[in-house]
Amino acid sequence: MKLSHSLLPTLKQIPRDAVIPSHQLMLRAGMIRPLAAGIYSDLPFGWRVAKKVMTILREEMDRIGGQELYMPCLNPISIWEETGRAGDFGSDLFRLMDRKNRSAGEGERYCLAPTHEEVICDIARGYVKSYRDLPQIWYQIQVKLRDEPRPRSGLMRSRHFIMKDSYTLDRDEEGQDHGYQLHYQAYSRIFERSGLETFVVGASSGLMGGSGSQEFMVESESGEDTTVRCDRCGYSANLEVATSNIESIAGPNDQETVIEVATPNQRTIEEVSSFLSIEPRILIKSLLYIVEDRPVLALVSGEDEVNESKLGAVLGAPFRPAEPHEAMQYMRANLGFLGPVGVDKSVKIIADLRLRNSTGLATGANKDGYHMTGVNAGRDFQPSEFRDLRTVKAGETCFNCHAKLRLARAIEVGHIFKLGTKYSQAMGAVFLDENGVEKPIVMGSYGIGVGRLVATVIEFSHDEQGIIWPPSVSPFDLMLITLNPTESDIYRLSQSVYDDLRKDGFDVLWDERDVRPGVKFNDADLIGIPIQIIVGDRAVATGAVEVKIRKTNQRHYVPKEELVPKMAELLESL
Amino acid sequence: MKLSHSLLPTLKQIPRDAVIPSHQLMLRAGMIRPLAAGIYSDLPFGWRVAKKVMTILREEMDRIGGQELYMPCLNPISIWEETGRAGDFGSDLFRLMDRKNRSAGEGERYCLAPTHEEVICDIARGYVKSYRDLPQIWYQIQVKLRDEPRPRSGLMRSRHFIMKDSYTLDRDEEGQDHGYQLHYQAYSRIFERSGLETFVVGASSGLMGGSGSQEFMVESESGEDTTVRCDRCGYSANLEVATSNIESIAGPNDQETVIEVATPNQRTIEEVSSFLSIEPRILIKSLLYIVEDRPVLALVSGEDEVNESKLGAVLGAPFRPAEPHEAMQYMRANLGFLGPVGVDKSVKIIADLRLRNSTGLATGANKDGYHMTGVNAGRDFQPSEFRDLRTVKAGETCFNCHAKLRLARAIEVGHIFKLGTKYSQAMGAVFLDENGVEKPIVMGSYGIGVGRLVATVIEFSHDEQGIIWPPSVSPFDLMLITLNPTESDIYRLSQSVYDDLRKDGFDVLWDERDVRPGVKFNDADLIGIPIQIIVGDRAVATGAVEVKIRKTNQRHYVPKEELVPKMAELLESL
Repeated sequence: MKLSHSLLPTLKQIPRDAVIPSHQLMLRAGMIRPLAAGIYSDLPFGWRVAKKVMTILREEMDRIGGQELYMPCLNPISIWEETGRAGDFGSDLFRLMDRKNRSAGEGERYCLAPTHEEVICDIARGYVKSYRDLPQIWYQIQVKLRDEPRPRSGLMRSRHFIMKDSYTLDRDEEGQDHGYQLHYQAYSRIFERSGLETFVVGASSGLMGGSGSQEFMVESESGEDTTVRCDRCGYSANLEVATSNIESIAGPNDQETVIEVATPNQRTIEEVSSFLSIEPRILIKSLLYIVEDRPVLALVSGEDEVNESKLGAVLGAPFRPAEPHEAMQYMRANLGFLGPVGVDKSVKIIADLRLRNSTGLATGANKDGYHMTGVNAGRDFQPSEFRDLRTVKAGETCFNCHAKLRLARAIEVGHIFKLGTKYSQAMGAVFLDENGVEKPIVMGSYGIGVGRLVATVIEFSHDEQGIIWPPSVSPFDLMLITLNPTESDIYRLSQSVYDDLRKDGFDVLWDERDVRPGVKFNDADLIGIPIQIIVGDRAVATGAVEVKIRKTNQRHYVPKEELVPKMAELLESL
Repeated sequence: MKLSHSLLPTLKQIPRDAVIPSHQLMLRAGMIRPLAAGIYSDLPFGWRVAKKVMTILREEMDRIGGQELYMPCLNPISIWEETGRAGDFGSDLFRLMDRKNRSAGEGERYCLAPTHEEVICDIARGYVKSYRDLPQIWYQIQVKLRDEPRPRSGLMRSRHFIMKDSYTLDRDEEGQDHGYQLHYQAYSRIFERSGLETFVVGASSGLMGGSGSQEFMVESESGEDTTVRCDRCGYSANLEVATSNIESIAGPNDQETVIEVATPNQRTIEEVSSFLSIEPRILIKSLLYIVEDRPVLALVSGEDEVNESKLGAVLGAPFRPAEPHEAMQYMRANLGFLGPVGVDKSVKIIADLRLRNSTGLATGANKDGYHMTGVNAGRDFQPSEFRDLRTVKAGETCFNCHAKLRLARAIEVGHIFKLGTKYSQAMGAVFLDENGVEKPIVMGSYGIGVGRLVATVIEFSHDEQGIIWPPSVSPFDLMLITLNPTESDIYRLSQSVYDDLRKDGFDVLWDERDVRPGVKFNDADLIGIPIQIIVGDRAVATGAVEVKIRKTNQRHYVPKEELVPKMAELLESL
């Protein structure tokens, strides 16, 4: 394609509001244009990359037996009510009326789908009748909408985005595991083919529910997620679920009984531990939550933070921190003086694993202005369960190999879920087994955001000058740069190089604009096609064109007649 | 692909509510599943056809220099307010709030785009600066949403649909004409490649506006449009704009002056002409409309109907029939007794061309219970314009070749528009010409609905048994039918045929289900893959497989080793 005829509006300036490199570079390289907050058009150059990615997605989904279909983004909200997610998604769901339900005064009876488990179940309950109809793998590449509270970072977190989502439908857990494994392998190939290095972490299932999920992550400063990584054994986990090898809490075990100590106006861990001259780690942090109108007291060591994601998994229901008046109501003390000793039975206590068998602890006394010391778990208070509630910190050791763990920012590029029968049960997507017994379909759900994948490739592969595309997803194979296109010898040679390369099946972007060489070199480096072929005076004089590898800045001089095989060879090597 | 593993739910029964053949067959062949009124999922079999069509669309758009991009379906309504179409589309536009404008109590600030002229202009005003940036052809294949008052006929008229829409941006009318011609040619190729016979009609531009438009039509009883066709010279037009060769009105010219006649209670054309014993054609039909609060009297012959589409084009503004009290206010008579003689100057009169120089007419007297006879145009009333206002009728003659015209139902499969500067002016999409003068971009807009195209192919090519796909858009090239797959010889031979064909690049659907042959034959005819290869006892015994051409029911017996070249040859011939 000739650049002078293309919509490829490059920018020299870094656009305001674009913070992370991929967002800056997609704007600067003319790949996207914002239309509203979190809503972008893909311009032709960006769309070419998206199409390359979609081709890889289709090939790998087809390879594992996926059947492609296409589901509407406009959904009747009734199916979302069947699964309860109309409520779960809350304001994240765009809701709207059609002319009929508007005139009937019914309120919003439609939504824009951020994912498609409900529609999948509706299709399944229409057509899947028998165990013979299973397993199935259905996928689509389609637009999704989600009213993000804070859309940001360009295509990383937008409100309108294209996703490949797929769904496995199986008769049992074993089938589900197989479909899940197929996706694990397909996803590994997809990211590898896109030029990314990924690692896989256990993850929280969030609004999806189900029995387990894993995320494919790419380490990046621009990532929104924090992961815990062990560089020795390869253990990786999202901070939301990560664990480490950490000892139990044991304080000075020199008190036979609990002693109440006045701690006037001392409320925070820092204030109380300093006032009592004790280590923060032996002071119990007691946090009161309200879970479906009932009080739950969560306990962790004073040096730890409650991980609300882990707590949520333990509670299995929506929860929120208690208000001061609720602390008074259930604990008869103000926040800052709460503790697990002598608590009313109506308050459920859940303690972090580090507190099991712990001794010599300090804690709030459930009495304003007082704390207690010499508290032993088991003797002085009895949690209903000990569970992993704390957030791992950098420098703790790996539970597996005892090497030091590090925290790493990362971008989630894929998420795979075992959903079990959560959706199929709610929606009546059932089948008859060999014995004529009706059973709910066991489902899995798997997603890759196309725009986010493209942005991640850029995060992973760019430099000061611009993008460096892996050949597999580059918008063009080759960039041909003509210096001084107004000189007829140079133009003629360029045209002949362009024709030869295209005849051989290369996708070539030809910069034949009548602008200064510096502008061309800068634009070429910015838009990042992996190989640049430069034709100017010297090429006309010598018959050899200059070939520059974008990534390494390495230069070759290649006789025109050897260009086609050389380009194939170089692209192969990148 | 093996049918036993596929989501291809065929139905024997004709589904309720599906009236036209394509809707019935798409449901029966498991191509689509309804999710809500006018909202469908494309199931894998249907989606394969859609993808074939999209490939043809991309190839032909690329061939004319189109650059593919992708614009969001979720639009800020502000850009629709810039062009005035937020109002023009009215209830056809789905409108919604995001969380921010909901909490700000602002009302609906977003809409779901039924077309993309506004976004195109927004992109153009961002990047097109100079005449050097023009011309451009931009296209996308993307989902559109439109709150149809009466969604019906499956994918023919749905509320959620995929379209190829493209836009030409040019510096002047000449450039626009060139881009329009390129599209005309591309569209002709697209429909021909899809196996359709189309004809082109001049059309009303409706909500798009602009200087002219044409529709690509396929003649079909299922069509929503009525067209006028001349089978001799090829003249074709949508009834909304069609003209014919028809003589002026001349009645008995035997009265020197107008005579007022009492016509008590005679109001309709039929009543009055019968009462006065005159031909209805010489009685003027006088219809009062209100156009932006001002009265307009439209006149046609009593045997003609006012074509409101033509009238709208003449008026250039929204209009409605007058209420009885408005007739009294402006004409001092009730509806039924109106006429053009002696009308107040504030009432604009527009007469059909047939009334130019007409004589000896009858008309309402603007006096309840009275008509007039002996009325001559020019002498007794003076319209401000004579324009073509009437609807053509079957049997009238062609203005071009004088052959008889016929009316034909037809499906609109493509629409091409010259938009001029309507949108670019409203949105400030301008460029600087060679002299530094700022000018609005001249635009064209062009659309093909993917789902409607697929449905039209089915309307055009089916029989009692089911669909008959043209090879170019068939979901598979070949269908392999194994009779008695539980017999190992038959299964082995089938597997070998399947492998051979796939190795050679054929896309094969293999029915290896353990069901009765009758079920297989019926399903194969229903889903309509152009060639069926049948493997049973006889094939095992003779080494020759039966090949059935779906369209002609012709059968060939082909030795297994000759199958690959024979299939290529047969597909080529279809």
